[in-house]
Amino acid sequence: MVTIKDVAKEAGVSVATVSRVLNDNGYVGADTREKVMEAISKLNYSPNEVARSLYKRESRLIGLLLPDITNPFFPQLARGVEDEAAREGFRLLLGNSDEKAKKEQEYIQTFLQNNVVGVISATNRADDGIYEPLSIPLVLMDRTSGAYPSVYADGREGGRLAAKALVERGAKKITLIKGPAHVKPAMERFQGALEVLGAAEVDFSVLSTDSYTFDAAKGWAEELFRVHPDTDGVIASNDIVGIAILHEALRLGKRIPADVQVVGYDDIPQSSLAYPPLSTIRQPAYDMGREAAKLLIRLIKKQSITETAVELPVAFIDRQTTRGGTHDEES
Amino acid sequence: MVTIKDVAKEAGVSVATVSRVLNDNGYVGADTREKVMEAISKLNYSPNEVARSLYKRESRLIGLLLPDITNPFFPQLARGVEDEAAREGFRLLLGNSDEKAKKEQEYIQTFLQNNVVGVISATNRADDGIYEPLSIPLVLMDRTSGAYPSVYADGREGGRLAAKALVERGAKKITLIKGPAHVKPAMERFQGALEVLGAAEVDFSVLSTDSYTFDAAKGWAEELFRVHPDTDGVIASNDIVGIAILHEALRLGKRIPADVQVVGYDDIPQSSLAYPPLSTIRQPAYDMGREAAKLLIRLIKKQSITETAVELPVAFIDRQTTRGGTHDEES
Repeated sequence: MVTIKDVAKEAGVSVATVSRVLNDNGYVGADTREKVMEAISKLNYSPNEVARSLYKRESRLIGLLLPDITNPFFPQLARGVEDEAAREGFRLLLGNSDEKAKKEQEYIQTFLQNNVVGVISATNRADDGIYEPLSIPLVLMDRTSGAYPSVYADGREGGRLAAKALVERGAKKITLIKGPAHVKPAMERFQGALEVLGAAEVDFSVLSTDSYTFDAAKGWAEELFRVHPDTDGVIASNDIVGIAILHEALRLGKRIPADVQVVGYDDIPQSSLAYPPLSTIRQPAYDMGREAAKLLIRLIKKQSITETAVELPVAFIDRQTTRGGTHDEES
Repeated sequence: MVTIKDVAKEAGVSVATVSRVLNDNGYVGADTREKVMEAISKLNYSPNEVARSLYKRESRLIGLLLPDITNPFFPQLARGVEDEAAREGFRLLLGNSDEKAKKEQEYIQTFLQNNVVGVISATNRADDGIYEPLSIPLVLMDRTSGAYPSVYADGREGGRLAAKALVERGAKKITLIKGPAHVKPAMERFQGALEVLGAAEVDFSVLSTDSYTFDAAKGWAEELFRVHPDTDGVIASNDIVGIAILHEALRLGKRIPADVQVVGYDDIPQSSLAYPPLSTIRQPAYDMGREAAKLLIRLIKKQSITETAVELPVAFIDRQTTRGGTHDEES
């Protein structure tokens, strides 16, 4: 294995000089730097990251904590984080918390034990004290809290857009699906929708749900049309629930969107492939991931940041489950 | 910060004794061990994993290399790996290769720089030399190769089951979608289907495709019914493509499954929520992830293993896109 000593010998400089070049600290003349870089390249030397991390007290690792990578909203976020992190030479330690405090704490602990230099977390527990002992940068993603820098989408506006879409398209008996109470973004979009429905001349009902899983979604969909058979517009808590409702409405022989209009939330990749393609509120998941990584890396590098709360815009995507939607699918 | 010295002092033993307890090597009496464990617990001491990894020349990190976490088949695999790894106290470094050799090599390199103790890879390049320099255990997942231990599903049988399902259900003009040629499992299921179709009394056509992305799938679906308008059975290369075909068939006014039967592949979570729910070949993705992690950890711990090629079974899931499927959905 090639060592730093071999590089120093090849370049005709001291080990300390090679170290200064590698760690980019202390003065090294341009000629010397070039000689060292040539020696590194020639010998195909790769510094041991672990030794380096112990020496510098820092690694190139970022901890990424998600509720559950099998929820189709999160892979896009994870990809965004990873692509940006990789571009800057950082790698990801991945954890799924299942939104359980104990798992969240355990992961934070092992992230620290592995000397991560920063953490990105999609947590609903930013204010529960779990993150207080962290002495390294933390960025909240898809979540916000006054206490930490965060990157999130405008959930309240998303809820408003969903409700406006149905009201403007003539729905008169709307069912608003309320997502899990402990999931903050779910509550924000719910409040936004409630605000618009409360001010509009429509009847509406609220159906409370406590999870986003596929299996549960089928159950809510059945309950919805049993309890509110004359519903002509549904604001779903997310796309999974929206697709389950679509499916149940079709099974009951309802025409979409003539009898029932449905608006989802998230714009997961599957939504444009639903039948009919689901109208929804698009959250920029991939961009959220990239922006969270960008912000975290700026914090890790102690670069100046102009905003600590990065709010990304949402948009109504008018497909075929709302009246007057495009029949040619945008991509 | 609590150090190993504090633990030694609290327990009234030497630092070397605490180290022996922590690393589980050398003789330590039961009483002494208990005193040390109590001191660790009382002081809430957590050994620095990085220092430990440098000292022991090993970490608790596993590198997981996937083609793309945003392909809905892979999150289940990743969860399976993570759940089993976490159970055994290991953490995951995650990389997406996009099936590009350069990215794959870069990730393997940085995994090594971070002292991972093992690698799980869903790669099509196991025999290209990328993995030869690895001196740590490697397990292939969702892929197999004579050269390395592997955990995979029986793709050839999956292809056979899909073709048999359509032949037995009376399809006479079948289109077989051939997945990307460089993806080995895609070729195995294709060969399996071909074997059955070749021996059956049916007409069939093959449509070659070169990716699994959602956007591309829509294009293949349109092409299929343009080129083969009388197709009455489709064996899709995966569920994404299957759902796109379903969608296009419905758009063209075809009845499912009376006019066209469709069988997907994978049984991603979205398939049971398709309209109509997609009949498919189930791959045990989560179990594959768990088994891959189990096998890797046994190799890391130098425990004996009985098989180095773990083949998991696949099953035909008879939903509503094939004739005679259940109308009550299994969960």
